[in-house]
Amino acid sequence: MAKPNVKEQIVSTSLNLLHSKGFNATSVQDITDAAGVPKGSFYNHFSSKEALGLEVVQRYTDGVGQIAALLKDRSVAPLQRLRQYFDRMIAGNTANDYNHGCMLGNFSTELSNQIPAMRVAMRQAFAGSGALLAAVIAEGQRDGSIASALPAEDLAAFVNDAWQGAVLRAKAEQSREPLDRFVRMVLGRVLA
Amino acid sequence: MAKPNVKEQIVSTSLNLLHSKGFNATSVQDITDAAGVPKGSFYNHFSSKEALGLEVVQRYTDGVGQIAALLKDRSVAPLQRLRQYFDRMIAGNTANDYNHGCMLGNFSTELSNQIPAMRVAMRQAFAGSGALLAAVIAEGQRDGSIASALPAEDLAAFVNDAWQGAVLRAKAEQSREPLDRFVRMVLGRVLA
Repeated sequence: MAKPNVKEQIVSTSLNLLHSKGFNATSVQDITDAAGVPKGSFYNHFSSKEALGLEVVQRYTDGVGQIAALLKDRSVAPLQRLRQYFDRMIAGNTANDYNHGCMLGNFSTELSNQIPAMRVAMRQAFAGSGALLAAVIAEGQRDGSIASALPAEDLAAFVNDAWQGAVLRAKAEQSREPLDRFVRMVLGRVLA
Repeated sequence: MAKPNVKEQIVSTSLNLLHSKGFNATSVQDITDAAGVPKGSFYNHFSSKEALGLEVVQRYTDGVGQIAALLKDRSVAPLQRLRQYFDRMIAGNTANDYNHGCMLGNFSTELSNQIPAMRVAMRQAFAGSGALLAAVIAEGQRDGSIASALPAEDLAAFVNDAWQGAVLRAKAEQSREPLDRFVRMVLGRVLA
């Protein structure tokens, strides 16, 4: 059996731990214990918990990016594509019973004001999802399926932010309802 | 000069500290140092940091409640009342240069999954602001100034959640723009 890669073991364990418990509530000891690796090995691979946190955010963002690829599928009508995207994002929240929230939202509130590099990572992630949403919305505006009175970039950024608010509320309520309401309101009102 | 009340000193210092740094990044030592009181005195007044956190959330919610009282002023037209309320909320964010966010949003993401009593406090606070918003929206629907195709409660909850998302994004960006965009979209599109 191949020797497990210690660094990969730490990153994949941390992905779950930092998502579920948050950054400051998770110690390096918690991480190495959960990963089943010696505490001393952590600093062979990461200069600090912050450095690990940034790798974990990159891993998480890559995962969301795979879902966001749905937004580029031009064989599906724009509104339907948005629905499919948010359905998949809701399924991600359902998988942890609405307890974990979005790691990007969690770290935005917990760390923006504490770790400058984390704030940069959040900004980049939000800009990325915002641009994908803006492209779909612009496409819908061109084919007449999405209201065109307001700029696609503005609508997309509002929808992107409102999604974070819905996920935050779903976590507070431990309920799916804020996410379903978000979809109803965005597809039935904001973009209609 | 009256002897300062140690408990009050701890609560008012923590209000700022827990809002700016978050719950888990702030130790009891940080709090007693900042409050200028002996560390030992903390546990004379609070059974735990959680117990203090709950008092601080109550204090914060009372402060937001004073702003939310604007929503009850029936001498001002519904849409104008909403604008005044969000203008005041934006001013609160401007005062800390968009670095602190909303304590309710911060604690929703950081603590919902960790401290059950905190989740209950968040739910109650959101239900309170949601009910006030729903009443104004319903009033606007009756006088014809707000679109009435969707239930006031649904619109209010969506707006309340979207506000949290806008504040979260403003914190990540350290920028006012997400808050201004929220107002443009809510008053110009969601409720128009």
